[in-house]
Amino acid sequence: MHKINVGANIYPYPMPVTLVGAIVEGRANFMAVAWMNRANRNPPLFVAAFNKRRYTVAGIRENRTFSINFPSVDLIEKADYCGLVSGRKTDKSTVFEVFYGELETAPMIQECPLCIECSLFDIVELPTNLLILGESVGAYTEDRYLTDGKLDVHKLKPVVLTMPDNNYWAVGDHVAGAWSVGKKLI
Amino acid sequence: MHKINVGANIYPYPMPVTLVGAIVEGRANFMAVAWMNRANRNPPLFVAAFNKRRYTVAGIRENRTFSINFPSVDLIEKADYCGLVSGRKTDKSTVFEVFYGELETAPMIQECPLCIECSLFDIVELPTNLLILGESVGAYTEDRYLTDGKLDVHKLKPVVLTMPDNNYWAVGDHVAGAWSVGKKLI
Repeated sequence: MHKINVGANIYPYPMPVTLVGAIVEGRANFMAVAWMNRANRNPPLFVAAFNKRRYTVAGIRENRTFSINFPSVDLIEKADYCGLVSGRKTDKSTVFEVFYGELETAPMIQECPLCIECSLFDIVELPTNLLILGESVGAYTEDRYLTDGKLDVHKLKPVVLTMPDNNYWAVGDHVAGAWSVGKKLI
Repeated sequence: MHKINVGANIYPYPMPVTLVGAIVEGRANFMAVAWMNRANRNPPLFVAAFNKRRYTVAGIRENRTFSINFPSVDLIEKADYCGLVSGRKTDKSTVFEVFYGELETAPMIQECPLCIECSLFDIVELPTNLLILGESVGAYTEDRYLTDGKLDVHKLKPVVLTMPDNNYWAVGDHVAGAWSVGKKLI
């Protein structure tokens, strides 16, 4: 089939929807971030890409801590709201019930089924964005999101984002086992 | 509800399944990578995190190009195979039909509904992994994956991965419009 070049400014299909929490100017703030993934196996590092001008950046630099929270589909309205309004103009500290873990300055969201607290590992400066590298020091969930003691994606109900159509999607059908289904071809 | 600490070595929910293509030792090679996302808005940069020992690393350093290919659910067996066997021991150059774009050393996969060709922007050294930063110079698809001229996630049928349960999932139901549904709360 003939391939069409649709231009360089393309997005991954799809991206995880997260809320990054930090204390900024003395209060908890949450920003929506979909440019996020794991960065390193050992220690467990995460990488998030933010615009340099984001209000959250100063808080992460000051406290050297932040959190990554995974909202479920049921929390999408509040999650999207956190991507629409800046903490610079709007106090988002009461949008969610906040709790803290081992790090005392990484605010996490009680309503989210999975929350990771991170200490700042490094910041890499790029042209318009920063890569914020955080080391996970703990991850918090509840019994009701586990099956046989393990996180269950059908209970977590995470959300993924596609751009530039700007839509949120649920995770759907099971396709196959990873590091498994391809063994047929070996 | 009571929160349980499930440990620091946690993964994002969920991650996009991609195949990173590069010319290594003179032939096309494809490795499965789920630690991948956008890194910068302008220029359009992607970041992928690989173990430093991966066979692909030498090829990316040598040619300073690579590709990111998004397999559809129908291609999962071959995609998983690329994550099971190393190019160091197995020639993966004939697993897919290969094509090239503007960059002549970034092999892309004809069977994948979306392929991005990247020039190497930078490499950031982390303890066990490398962050490979690539600038997208073009993205290739086909008419049959577009609706009204735009990429359609239901036609692309991308795959997401959850770890450590190691499962592949399809994208499911539409949840809401992004930068939209949260306006109710403003």
